[in-house]
Amino acid sequence: MRVARPRCTLGMVVRGGGRGGACESRRAPRHGAGRDGRRPGQAGPGRGRSGPGRMSRQAGRSTESKKMNSELFTLTYGALVTQLCKDYENDEDVNKQLDKMGYNIGVRLIEDFLARSNVGRCHDFRETADVIAKIAFKMYLGITPSITNWSPGGDEFSLILENNPLVDFVELPDNHSSLIYSNLLCGVLRGALEMVQMAVDVKFIQDTLKGDSVTEIRMKFIRRIEDNLPAGEE
Amino acid sequence: MRVARPRCTLGMVVRGGGRGGACESRRAPRHGAGRDGRRPGQAGPGRGRSGPGRMSRQAGRSTESKKMNSELFTLTYGALVTQLCKDYENDEDVNKQLDKMGYNIGVRLIEDFLARSNVGRCHDFRETADVIAKIAFKMYLGITPSITNWSPGGDEFSLILENNPLVDFVELPDNHSSLIYSNLLCGVLRGALEMVQMAVDVKFIQDTLKGDSVTEIRMKFIRRIEDNLPAGEE
Repeated sequence: MRVARPRCTLGMVVRGGGRGGACESRRAPRHGAGRDGRRPGQAGPGRGRSGPGRMSRQAGRSTESKKMNSELFTLTYGALVTQLCKDYENDEDVNKQLDKMGYNIGVRLIEDFLARSNVGRCHDFRETADVIAKIAFKMYLGITPSITNWSPGGDEFSLILENNPLVDFVELPDNHSSLIYSNLLCGVLRGALEMVQMAVDVKFIQDTLKGDSVTEIRMKFIRRIEDNLPAGEE
Repeated sequence: MRVARPRCTLGMVVRGGGRGGACESRRAPRHGAGRDGRRPGQAGPGRGRSGPGRMSRQAGRSTESKKMNSELFTLTYGALVTQLCKDYENDEDVNKQLDKMGYNIGVRLIEDFLARSNVGRCHDFRETADVIAKIAFKMYLGITPSITNWSPGGDEFSLILENNPLVDFVELPDNHSSLIYSNLLCGVLRGALEMVQMAVDVKFIQDTLKGDSVTEIRMKFIRRIEDNLPAGEE
């Protein structure tokens, strides 16, 4: 995983610099040696989206992060899932939509993460696992999952969440037994890692919402992304 | 504003106590002297909702709050607003839906707030304003708005948000000029205050997303809620 610091990140916009700021690049971080981690055509923050949730540098955005309790986030996430359950006919479609939304969040969040975390390039998947669990989860969800169940080949591991903040206050109704409530997280991880050129498969294999004692996210390394094929936003 | 500590709150569930926990009450805090702050028929946490976002005590929920950076919340909120913009034909309907969702969040969040904040009963609307700006906003959004523009009668004030975390990364597309992007917050305030027996009107009157230099939320005290008329969840 190459994690070269982007020349210009969301977190470094001069306050009051106006929309878009004085900074040319709105794209995801470059990953060294003249290669662009984003594949051409892939939408960058603030570009290529029509929805109001599109990301762009905002006047007044500062490097200072706002630390908040997780409960408002938790309840807002619940409102999102509830809305999707109204919009889609079955749980599978909701799961897909959550993953897709998460992906789009992940490809944006990575830039903020690289700017704030100051992490260097990861040398292997084990180091990537450490960065995800100990820095990223702590930063954005306030928890530190444990890393377990490595595959012999070192290409798969599990993140164990003893307390998943997304499911505070939640219990699944019987008619949503196939809902993967927190599936947004899988999409976030997949999207963020894709931007640092790692294709991964991410899925929940245990979930306290379904009676398991812990929540377990399984991450499998698929391949290093080297191509520059065009890809649209999901 | 009466803010008697609830006997049993979300934050005090024994870990591993099972869904619903050992604690009888799932309702909002009582407000002294045998009166129940919730009007009969109003849905309490974990009851009376069909969506998966309904709130109930979860096994494993602890009193410890998870502090997180706001960026994941911000982007998730963006996904919610984007989804609503797909679902509803015009901005006014999206605004209403955001307010309604916020209301439902507020009636749940208040219990968590009372448990964590340890605030006592407010003697007047000025004290209420202080609690909202200095404790609630700080707790759940990581910012402390300033309180200004009091009406002569002391029944209206403004909260000035210099940096609204909800709008980091966001700019409104031209075809959503009527969208009140952060309207969820108005609903949250309205819902939470209703649970402590204050009917308030809450609206945005300035918004950095619309070119204003700050974001201003105007809060107007309407009346003290004394009746016990049944009211459903919005």
